[in-house]
Amino acid sequence: MAKYKAVFHIDENKKWKLLLANVSNLLDAIDGESYDVEVVANSEAVKYYDTGQNLDTDVNTMKELMEKGVMFVACNNALRTNKIEKGQILDYVKVVPAGVLELVEKQSEGYAYIKP
Amino acid sequence: MAKYKAVFHIDENKKWKLLLANVSNLLDAIDGESYDVEVVANSEAVKYYDTGQNLDTDVNTMKELMEKGVMFVACNNALRTNKIEKGQILDYVKVVPAGVLELVEKQSEGYAYIKP
Amino acid sequence: MAKYKAVFHIDENKKWKLLLANVSNLLDAIDGESYDVEVVANSEAVKYYDTGQNLDTDVNTMKELMEKGVMFVACNNALRTNKIEKGQILDYVKVVPAGVLELVEKQSEGYAYIKP
Repeated sequence: MAKYKAVFHIDENKKWKLLLANVSNLLDAIDGESYDVEVVANSEAVKYYDTGQNLDTDVNTMKELMEKGVMFVACNNALRTNKIEKGQILDYVKVVPAGVLELVEKQSEGYAYIKP
Repeated sequence: MAKYKAVFHIDENKKWKLLLANVSNLLDAIDGESYDVEVVANSEAVKYYDTGQNLDTDVNTMKELMEKGVMFVACNNALRTNKIEKGQILDYVKVVPAGVLELVEKQSEGYAYIKP
Repeated sequence: MAKYKAVFHIDENKKWKLLLANVSNLLDAIDGESYDVEVVANSEAVKYYDTGQNLDTDVNTMKELMEKGVMFVACNNALRTNKIEKGQILDYVKVVPAGVLELVEKQSEGYAYIKP
């Protein structure tokens, strides 16, 4: 079991830059210990996963974090509301039926919740 | 004991639409399992419980969620600050002395925290 | 072990007034029970600890809360980003390497998370 477990919640696109900096800072601070870190996007924030939306998605930082084990998650309700097909989003993003249920389940598994 | 436990926190009126959609999505996703879901409003967000405030309160969605067991809670400190009498708010809303203490207590009982 | 444990997270200066009111309300509501309460500021919110930033820091309320045992914490990453030296901030503020790691650790110790 990982020593550090955290789930980050984002539902506003203007918070992505801060969120990615928060996640990077967390990984730097953990420094050598095991961790499970997940980012759950719902509401409009799922648009950021679709590089065709002109939101200036920071794909380099995301890919770097993904390669360090960070799981990026999209809420399927939010994808539908925003008319985004699964094929349009970054291919390493995991789609869950409901972002809020994911947030509840992760916390019940001992993940800390952080909302930047 | 309920399988899923979640407390939603709201302190800005502009977030109510998103919050109610989040709660509805959670209940839809839980689908047949037991749950305890609570919404705690403090600060200006308690005004939404008073239909005389012209905030276009979505009473239909709230009543539907209430009938599915969702508990709506108001912080009494916030009611006083906003000069709202208990008799002015929707009659199924539970008033607690301090919304923040309710948030602490629910989390200590194993509720996940979600701030839309 | 304290009966009530809560960590408040702030990353926007405009939320400080609300946050300090939330913490005060929590302490008033706890009324005689033991508690561990911490405030973790990261991102731009660390500027509030530096009274030279003209953010109208409510030093009286902060000092009062500090004397009641509330721990105020600053993220060192955020201090560096905002070019603030440790000597510039209020002397009872504790500096941690990463605010997000502090938030994860406190929650793993059973603290409730609240983001005003």
